[in-house]
Amino acid sequence: MIAMRYKLYYWPEIQGRGEFVRLALEDAGADYVDVARRPNGVAAMTRMLESRRPGVAPFAPPVLQVGREVIAQTANILLFLGSRLKLAPRSEFGRLRVHQLQLTIADWLTEVHDTHHPIGSGLCYEDQRPEAKRRAADFTRNRLPKYLGYFERTLERGSGGYLLCRTCTYADLSLFQMIAGLRYAFPLAMKRLARRSPLLLALHGRVAARPRIAAYLASPRRIAFNPHGIFRRYAELDSG
Amino acid sequence: MIAMRYKLYYWPEIQGRGEFVRLALEDAGADYVDVARRPNGVAAMTRMLESRRPGVAPFAPPVLQVGREVIAQTANILLFLGSRLKLAPRSEFGRLRVHQLQLTIADWLTEVHDTHHPIGSGLCYEDQRPEAKRRAADFTRNRLPKYLGYFERTLERGSGGYLLCRTCTYADLSLFQMIAGLRYAFPLAMKRLARRSPLLLALHGRVAARPRIAAYLASPRRIAFNPHGIFRRYAELDSG
Repeated sequence: MIAMRYKLYYWPEIQGRGEFVRLALEDAGADYVDVARRPNGVAAMTRMLESRRPGVAPFAPPVLQVGREVIAQTANILLFLGSRLKLAPRSEFGRLRVHQLQLTIADWLTEVHDTHHPIGSGLCYEDQRPEAKRRAADFTRNRLPKYLGYFERTLERGSGGYLLCRTCTYADLSLFQMIAGLRYAFPLAMKRLARRSPLLLALHGRVAARPRIAAYLASPRRIAFNPHGIFRRYAELDSG
Repeated sequence: MIAMRYKLYYWPEIQGRGEFVRLALEDAGADYVDVARRPNGVAAMTRMLESRRPGVAPFAPPVLQVGREVIAQTANILLFLGSRLKLAPRSEFGRLRVHQLQLTIADWLTEVHDTHHPIGSGLCYEDQRPEAKRRAADFTRNRLPKYLGYFERTLERGSGGYLLCRTCTYADLSLFQMIAGLRYAFPLAMKRLARRSPLLLALHGRVAARPRIAAYLASPRRIAFNPHGIFRRYAELDSG
């Protein structure tokens, strides 16, 4: 197979869902362009989203273009890249296992988003603050420990440092991003829950230390967490 | 390949996410057991969910068991069944297209669920009614037309009656279920939006008329919509 240049289309000022794709491309050392971060890049993204090419149009970014093919939905892009970039097992059931974990991470991420947008994604945070406080309290009390516990147990079973034992997959990279984002958004809740999640914290450190990921995180390509992304730090939503 | 008996594990009293799997199995005429609907079936499901078998444990039902393999996450199960049951194209990019559509349906379904549970899935509806009214109003005004418009345009492009033109895939079966559920839960909003969705309504009828689906819908295997499922009819959440 000829090495392809991948084109990623995603909002240029946030990590958001695009970050899960960026981490896979970066860890594999893939040749890619982050289209919307170049001059006039957002206009290029809008044109691509609105173009009437054959095939299935994306509902929303992120979108990955490979030659003439266009793939959308974060977990679907990772399913594709997992095979191409050796970030998933080769066997059918192995690939399904990684994808299952990724889809659970996707559900978790949506719940994180909804802590600050429980009423409508088109409204701003300030217009749904009381509801956000209630939802975030339920999240940090019930859902966050449930997800952390699930992934901690999955790491326990694998007992090789990564979700599927010793090989790093795109789901491990995504889990790193979840831990990083949750520590940014909910520092108190995460500090309280950390002692029950030693393997998750070790995974976070292990991924951060992978040479290409370490170089990426130290580069200007890594956008900082900020108040416009999915992971947001609002003190009133956190709880120790 | 030897014909396998599939075991589906899902809550026995609701359609829920399990229904998307049931529709695929039924349309293909697959040999399957709906484990939790048999005597002591819920106990069997609990045992399976809590068993410490090797591999990746499910986070939640639905779960499909095939021989010794266990697959969870609705879209992941359908990705697997799509290949086995000829409910997806054979080509890699064709399979990714169907999966992309399925993941967009999954996002949509989560938003439907959150109209009646915007604060916490562990709380009952009565404990989050004011928030549910606000979220449902945003859903019927903004999100529902957006999703309907997206799938209507996708059907327009394909112009063969199904999402990927002339062949019915698991995403078409799931889209049928979305339309059926939305008409049950939001009859007024759907009546208002129907005139802009003629191809979606035609798809709903086309799937309902497929011989095995028609037989299934008329059988006791099809659980009726009810106030415990994802699609719930609360008049105060609907809007004409």
